[in-house]
This record gives sequence, structure tokens and C-alpha cells, in this order.
Amino acid sequence: MTINRQFIIERIPSGPLTADCFRIEHAEMPVPQEGEVLLKARYMSIDAASRAWMQGATYRDALGTESIMAGRAVAEVVESRHPDFQPGDLAFAEFGWQEYAALPATALRKQPNQQPLSHLLSVYGVSGLTAYFGLLEVAQAKAGDTVVISAAAGSVGHFAGQIARLLGCRVVGIAGSKAKCDWLTGELGFDAVINYKTGGLAEQLKTACPDGIDVYFDNVGGATLEVVLAQMNLHGRIACCGAVSSYDSGQPEHGPRGVPFLLVVNRLIMRGFIVSDFFAQMDQAQAQLHAWVEQGGIKVAEDILDGFESLPAALIGLLNGENRGKRMVKIA
Amino acid sequence: MTINRQFIIERIPSGPLTADCFRIEHAEMPVPQEGEVLLKARYMSIDAASRAWMQGATYRDALGTESIMAGRAVAEVVESRHPDFQPGDLAFAEFGWQEYAALPATALRKQPNQQPLSHLLSVYGVSGLTAYFGLLEVAQAKAGDTVVISAAAGSVGHFAGQIARLLGCRVVGIAGSKAKCDWLTGELGFDAVINYKTGGLAEQLKTACPDGIDVYFDNVGGATLEVVLAQMNLHGRIACCGAVSSYDSGQPEHGPRGVPFLLVVNRLIMRGFIVSDFFAQMDQAQAQLHAWVEQGGIKVAEDILDGFESLPAALIGLLNGENRGKRMVKIA
Repeated sequence: MTINRQFIIERIPSGPLTADCFRIEHAEMPVPQEGEVLLKARYMSIDAASRAWMQGATYRDALGTESIMAGRAVAEVVESRHPDFQPGDLAFAEFGWQEYAALPATALRKQPNQQPLSHLLSVYGVSGLTAYFGLLEVAQAKAGDTVVISAAAGSVGHFAGQIARLLGCRVVGIAGSKAKCDWLTGELGFDAVINYKTGGLAEQLKTACPDGIDVYFDNVGGATLEVVLAQMNLHGRIACCGAVSSYDSGQPEHGPRGVPFLLVVNRLIMRGFIVSDFFAQMDQAQAQLHAWVEQGGIKVAEDILDGFESLPAALIGLLNGENRGKRMVKIA
Repeated sequence: MTINRQFIIERIPSGPLTADCFRIEHAEMPVPQEGEVLLKARYMSIDAASRAWMQGATYRDALGTESIMAGRAVAEVVESRHPDFQPGDLAFAEFGWQEYAALPATALRKQPNQQPLSHLLSVYGVSGLTAYFGLLEVAQAKAGDTVVISAAAGSVGHFAGQIARLLGCRVVGIAGSKAKCDWLTGELGFDAVINYKTGGLAEQLKTACPDGIDVYFDNVGGATLEVVLAQMNLHGRIACCGAVSSYDSGQPEHGPRGVPFLLVVNRLIMRGFIVSDFFAQMDQAQAQLHAWVEQGGIKVAEDILDGFESLPAALIGLLNGENRGKRMVKIA
């Protein structure tokens, strides 16, 4: 009998996530019911937000102990009891940290069988689309804008920076190591970079953005947001994509000074979003991303770990900022 | 020789504003130059924001010591050296706390000679227009929305609440005394009110807004914003109009917890604005406000103090929340 390995949440961390928050269980293979599809995971997306889901309810229910850890995957159909899917088809799904799942066909988004498969989770997946919609729809970035991006070497950030360049913006990245910064300017065409770990963020930002900041693509929140906020130009836009600075802890921190006063003074817009808000425009966005990748305008950086067992370490490492580009785990 | 009395800023307060921050000086009457107009102040608007101008540069230069205290007025032309203005004409201007001013005609906005004159500073002036644009343009309030308004009995708030009602919203006001709360429900048609001074704001808000909050018209910022933010519905809008909770002090306070995390989770928009952003739509807005006032849909509450000498006390009292409706000082 085939075994379905699963990572179960054993306890909710009160501070930084550790491996002993999870345990592996050997479950029985699920059996698809009428209307369902049995899938095996191929690549599992590793996302900082999944740590936030352990803190409480967000745009989805909170993750509790004794449940399967949440995760999105590109998976392959093994057996189908729904006419829309055949064995061998690929689908994107809220899959959970397990090797197999039987899911209703209505919960799946069919994917083209393209190479490399991993691109379905990076540039054509949530990361690339989040960067695209965040810049074009939420922040309304346009040629000539100075755009600042935090977690710039991360899953979403490295795409956001390249897209902003393609739009004709001046792009300034904030990242957490010299190696990442060198990579952003050397390989990805960022105009300037800031290593926030060397301190003096406000001064570094002033040097990198002598004409102020028009758009801030915020992946981190916290103290960085506070510093950036104070340097936003009149009618600036802040796309609130994530708050990773607050995910890996138990206590919500204070908000940034200057909210709401600086918003009034400079007539700023702060807007939170998630990619599914733009579901209706997904095909158009993917087509544009395809074109940019094929023209060489976007370089796709993927940070792929191997094997089901590496899931906890992959997430813990991501929360510690060890990845460069889109992190995922190859399951099969 | 006629004397022009002026209030000069003698010192910048480090805490709450006090009367000894100002002194009266007797200046000479100004003489209009070519292209200028000599005006005498009729009604001086009293605005919380002018306290913020003493803290530092905002959307205008900071107010420094030994300068005339800033204030907007409806003033009457005494002598004109510009063809667009004749003696007896009325104009709105950044006037300063003085009885007379010689100003370039280009800095004036001509006003109709309507009765009562004070309405030019309340419902048809900055207060009414700020409420109008804040709700319709910034917050995009629509029928069925639950709208929460802070400083609801104040200059802008009491108009915002009535306009929201006219739009078909459910309107909940936050104010600082039982008398104000009774007035808002009894006279102005608010659906519910909360006296924040009795404590338990979060619980009171939950009771008053069982279906959550769609629009928050924020005049105060600070701790109230933090509480409201946590009860905003999906796709809620926050119109950031002012941050009066932070104006009358020397130290900027921490920002509200939940920024930016709750913005992402609930896909909220926070947007700061000032009325002049909507200059192009001013005539249309005033026409609508006129219609509402004439139909009895908006009751205009004015809190008018008498005499030039009362200017400092009028502003200090406003910052302490003693006014109900639009506060101004009748100068002449």
C-alpha cells in the first residue's frame, strides 16, 4: 500500500518557527470521491505568509495544531473522477504539506504542461502575478517614478524590481546582505540597492532616492515602512503586499509612526492586496509575463530545495532571509 | 491712523497650546500695491490643523516664532488695485490672525455675498467640502455601507455624518461627551454614537457596527484608528482627513498596530487628502451642498465666538474638543 506522508502542526510557535513545530505522519492514500481528483505534489511553494496563518485568521482560517501544514503546490493528476481532468494533467491547488491529496475539481486551477514546471510557481504563479498586479494595479507605477522595493531579492521582490524597470521606473531595492545587493544590481538591473543590515536606512535611502519616493512596494512592514513613509513624495502610493517583519513572532508590533499624519500631509495612498483580488485579469497578466520572460526582460530566479522532508527547513530558512528568488521544494 | 491688530507667535508650544504662545501687536495698516487688494477680516476659521502647522512643515511651511499666526478667513475688500475686485466684494484667503491684510488678487477666491456669511466657512467652505470629497471621492461611500466618523460633532465630522446619511449609509459617530452624542442622534440623524471617553471603544464599536465597518472617516488618528482598523470589513476604505490626536503635543506617537498587516488581510485602502486636491470639482460640490441644505438634508451647526481677541481661546478650546459644529471667530 502506498503511504501518504504529511507534515502535521504539532504546536504553534510563540516566537520564531522551529522544526519541532511539525511532525511527519504516514497517512493512508486518500481515495477520490465522485467529482474529486487524486493528485501528487510536484513542487510545493514556500511562502512567508504561511507563517502568518499560524498566528490567527487572516484572509483564510487560522492553522491549528493537529492539522496538515498549509502550502500551495503544482500537482499532477493521478486519478480523476471529474470529466475536466485526466491523469497526467497539472493543476495548482491549496494542497497542504503532503505528498498526495484528493481534492474537488472545482478547487483546482489547471496549468499548462510547460518546462520548466517550476515557473508555474514562480514567474507565472503567485509570485510573478503578485509583483505584476502590485505594481500596475495597486501602486499604479509609471515611467519616471522612483520605486522602492523591500525584500527585493525575495520571491516577489525580484520580479517586482524587474517589472518596474520594464515600466521605465528608477528601481531601488532593500535587501539583507551584500551578496543579494550585488546580485540585484549586477544581474537584475536594479538602479540602486540598500543593505538594511548595515544600519542607517534613512540616510542610505536618502542617498539612493535624491528625488524622494513615488512608489513603495512593501513586503515587510515594520520599521522599514516607517522609514520609507517619511520619504514618500506627494501623491505617493504604497502597495502593501506583506508584513514579513511581523510574521515570525508572537506579538504584533506597533505600527509605523506617521500613520495617518504623513498620509494626509503628502496625500498618500496605502493599499493592501492579495493576488486573487485580480483573478479576472490573470490571463492577460500571464501573457505579458510570458512575453517579458521570452524577450529576456525578466530573469527568473528560483531557489529549489529537494525532497519532501526539507519542507520545514525551507520555510524556516525563508523566514530568516536565506533565499534568493522564489523558494520552493521539489516533491516528486 | 487705523491700527491693524495681529496675533504674533511668541513661542512654539512643546505640549498643549496655551494662550501665552501668542501676543497681540499693533501694526500699521498695510497699503495695497499694484495687483493687490486690501481686505478686512469678517470671519476667521478655527482649524485643528493650524496647531499641526506649528509642529513642522506639512503641506505648507511650518509656522515659526515672530510670524503672524496662520488662519483662513472670509474677508471684505476695502480697497482694490486689481480689476477683478471692488470694495465690498467678499473673498476667501489665507489671511493670518490679523484684522487687515493686503494680498495679491491671485491669492484670493471670490465668494458670493450670501446670508449668513458664516456659511462660507462652514458648509460651503473647507469643512463642508472636506466632508463631501472625503466621503464621495476618497472613501467612495455608497448606500448600505456602515460609515464610522471620528470627531463626529466637529467642524467636518458633523457634515460628514449627515452626507453619509444622505448617501444611504448607516452612520456611527464617535465623540467625546454625552451631550455631543445626544445631539448627533437626536438632531443630526446619526444611527448610533459612541462616547469614547467612557472607555471600551472596541466593545462599543462592535455593538454599534455588528456587520463591521466599510468606511472610516478619520479625523483623529492615534488609538482610535487602531481600534477601528481591527473592525474594518474586506475592501474597506479609510479616508485620512486629519490626526488631531497628535497635533497638540510635541512628540509623534507610535502608529496604529495592524499597519500594514490588516491592510493586506482585508485589502483595505487608506488614503490621505486635503480639500484643495479636488479644486476642479469644487463648484459641483458646492451646488450639491446648497441643494442638500435647502432641502433640509444638512443642518449647519456653527459655533461662533465673538471678537478678534478671542482667537487664541477659540483654537485652544477647539483642541480640547469644546466646540460643536464648525468653530469660527467673528472679527467684524
